[in-house]
Amino acid sequence: MPADRPRIVIVGSGFGGMAAARALRRVSAKVTLVDRTNHHLFQPLLYQVATAALSPADIATANRVLLRGSSNMRVLMAEVTGIDTATRAVLLRDGRRLPYDYLVLATGAAYSFFGHDEWREHAMVLKSLEDALAIRARLLDAFERAEQSSDPAETRRLLTFAIVGGGPTGVELAGTIAELARTTLARDFTCIDPQGTRVVLCEAGERLLSAFDPALSAYAADALASLGVEVRTGTAVEAIDSTGLMLGEERIDAGAVLWCAGTEARPAARWLGAEAARNGAVQVETDCSVPGHPEIFAIGDVASFDGGEGRPLPGLAPVAKQQGAHVGRLLAARVAGRSEPGAFRYRDHGTMAVIGRARAVARLGGMQLKGFVAWLAWSLVHLLLLVDFRSRLLVYVNWSWAWFTYGRGARLLMRETQAAPHSLPTDEIGIGEP
Amino acid sequence: MPADRPRIVIVGSGFGGMAAARALRRVSAKVTLVDRTNHHLFQPLLYQVATAALSPADIATANRVLLRGSSNMRVLMAEVTGIDTATRAVLLRDGRRLPYDYLVLATGAAYSFFGHDEWREHAMVLKSLEDALAIRARLLDAFERAEQSSDPAETRRLLTFAIVGGGPTGVELAGTIAELARTTLARDFTCIDPQGTRVVLCEAGERLLSAFDPALSAYAADALASLGVEVRTGTAVEAIDSTGLMLGEERIDAGAVLWCAGTEARPAARWLGAEAARNGAVQVETDCSVPGHPEIFAIGDVASFDGGEGRPLPGLAPVAKQQGAHVGRLLAARVAGRSEPGAFRYRDHGTMAVIGRARAVARLGGMQLKGFVAWLAWSLVHLLLLVDFRSRLLVYVNWSWAWFTYGRGARLLMRETQAAPHSLPTDEIGIGEP
Repeated sequence: MPADRPRIVIVGSGFGGMAAARALRRVSAKVTLVDRTNHHLFQPLLYQVATAALSPADIATANRVLLRGSSNMRVLMAEVTGIDTATRAVLLRDGRRLPYDYLVLATGAAYSFFGHDEWREHAMVLKSLEDALAIRARLLDAFERAEQSSDPAETRRLLTFAIVGGGPTGVELAGTIAELARTTLARDFTCIDPQGTRVVLCEAGERLLSAFDPALSAYAADALASLGVEVRTGTAVEAIDSTGLMLGEERIDAGAVLWCAGTEARPAARWLGAEAARNGAVQVETDCSVPGHPEIFAIGDVASFDGGEGRPLPGLAPVAKQQGAHVGRLLAARVAGRSEPGAFRYRDHGTMAVIGRARAVARLGGMQLKGFVAWLAWSLVHLLLLVDFRSRLLVYVNWSWAWFTYGRGARLLMRETQAAPHSLPTDEIGIGEP
Repeated sequence: MPADRPRIVIVGSGFGGMAAARALRRVSAKVTLVDRTNHHLFQPLLYQVATAALSPADIATANRVLLRGSSNMRVLMAEVTGIDTATRAVLLRDGRRLPYDYLVLATGAAYSFFGHDEWREHAMVLKSLEDALAIRARLLDAFERAEQSSDPAETRRLLTFAIVGGGPTGVELAGTIAELARTTLARDFTCIDPQGTRVVLCEAGERLLSAFDPALSAYAADALASLGVEVRTGTAVEAIDSTGLMLGEERIDAGAVLWCAGTEARPAARWLGAEAARNGAVQVETDCSVPGHPEIFAIGDVASFDGGEGRPLPGLAPVAKQQGAHVGRLLAARVAGRSEPGAFRYRDHGTMAVIGRARAVARLGGMQLKGFVAWLAWSLVHLLLLVDFRSRLLVYVNWSWAWFTYGRGARLLMRETQAAPHSLPTDEIGIGEP
């Protein structure tokens, strides 16, 4: 340990990195939290930004605000491009080096296209606020274009949304887009009927929400069907292009393809030259340290932690938060020369997925919940998990308003989204005039 | 008049266009509202989006929502590029033509650089939501860059914000940026002291807020000075470049130059071949119609209406709203064959400008108000003027939160804003480490 106060660098301000930083607030060390954005994002509600129900600021808070008042803490907005483990320094995009004595990697995961990187330019993903705003613009723009189109096939394509991946994000997006079309937008157009919107949820596996009990998967499929979502399980997507996708042998023309299938860890394993799991995550020891590097820890989606029976822990927010808190406590003890906590143990309180207005599925402790009760539990838990009072208040206000009015408050299209030319005939506008 | 129901086209969904559309909701005509965005924007609070106090969705509402339930009304998101007055059609960017029997032009104004169009790429303006988000990103990014800079001159430049134009928008931005630096951000940085932020408000005329009583101008200058704003009147800006501006003979290096000086009308006069005032606005008759075109009306900032003594009415929201309502009533009467209202008369209820927390100036009826009373009046009036209940509720919640915490909830920087490389030395980060 250096004579001076040790330098702890945390890379990533998601659930894991922020939990680690907060656990280190009073520790006698120089702590630096690095992220390429300036905020902590509550990812579980990101799909509500993508579907115009919430604003970015409702679910994101500046890192500096969350770590305010800790004199040992520095926040740095910069992009990490590598690690020099020999000299113990984090390398930044602008060429600078950030020396560390202890390093916590919490860089998360990105979407993986299973080797089909050419699909990336046609399919939209949902990981960041930019992603959510891009999806929101694409959805709203599709309705505006369809309203102005005089080609029925093109109208039908624009109003078809294909979602790939039947996990919680895919289920939540499919349900919310169907509701958006059938309630919020239903009365707002002259030439098109948004209720004719087609939402197709494609899952290659045999059932949706494979992490849940089969009975809950079946409930979710039924609930989505009642919202008008076409649930297509057991067939893999074979191709994605600019106007749609191939689901097995079937062509589905779509105005937007949203990719919610597999993820892969961001490249921390490559930075370290460490052993990686199949999804690129760093295989870590029982204390979350990297093998051969007791001074480096990996937590959350960028880590692969053996959860028993050879299966890694799932890529969920609670895993990241608990690992962050664990590593924070461990480093606090190490810096103070106290005895360190032992192996990390994940306390699994359950998991949830929301399907639409007043419908959700949840596993809480040993209970399997579905329907309104599960939705109520989901709403309460997510409100309480939001990181600050202001976010809770704003999300509560927005949800209450949406509940009573069926409205979506963030239906904003700015000029830029019109940059792509509309594929429209050059003639007088007459179709469907009021 | 055509045998069929007449076609009324309104271009622009700002205060004027929306007021006209709302006045025509029950009229037996085919009404089309065209705008290049999909929303109505409450511009008077745009500076609060630019300074991270409000989210875009708090002050913008989809046009379709505002005009919902009117079966005679169509909303079209498209960009207008010209008018063919001979065949009576509006020309759209994609080549289509939108025929009209009556046309209402409410396209507003843009910022004018007094012939120095080369300044446009260096100075930021505040007219649209994109503008506001760009200013917000520039302001927040300046503090992040300054925090990481090891060059004191560059730090000082980054933390200098120059605002050109001492009208209400310039005064509001200057006061809010000074408050942002001195309260919200004051405790959040390690290497810089945001309280050292320099805000320079440049006004070529002899006093700020020239539309107000001189005593109120003096009060505003004092109030800004007490917030730490350097108020510089009586000297014109001679040049603007990428790192600052020349105020007379004096160089001011700045991290951002915000342009709030003169405006010019959008090019409706050119479209019409009509006579234009000095700022490009269409000179209109007493009923807001365009001379020689009784079927075309121009309202709001795009119109120049003689307000008496040869002076045009000012470019204020109430003028646009009242003119929109007037033209709406006029067209409703004309379509129904009833007698039309006479000349438009502006009812001047007053005007206001806010300087910061709990300080404002206002002229209300015959009263001159300043300080807390004026600020209270400003807050109430603006809450009530917001177009829907949801916006009122969200703005109220955000304001209340900001009042008690001195916080700004929308302090978000996304990755894109980092695209420009930081001008930083390639070395280890050591300066100011905690």
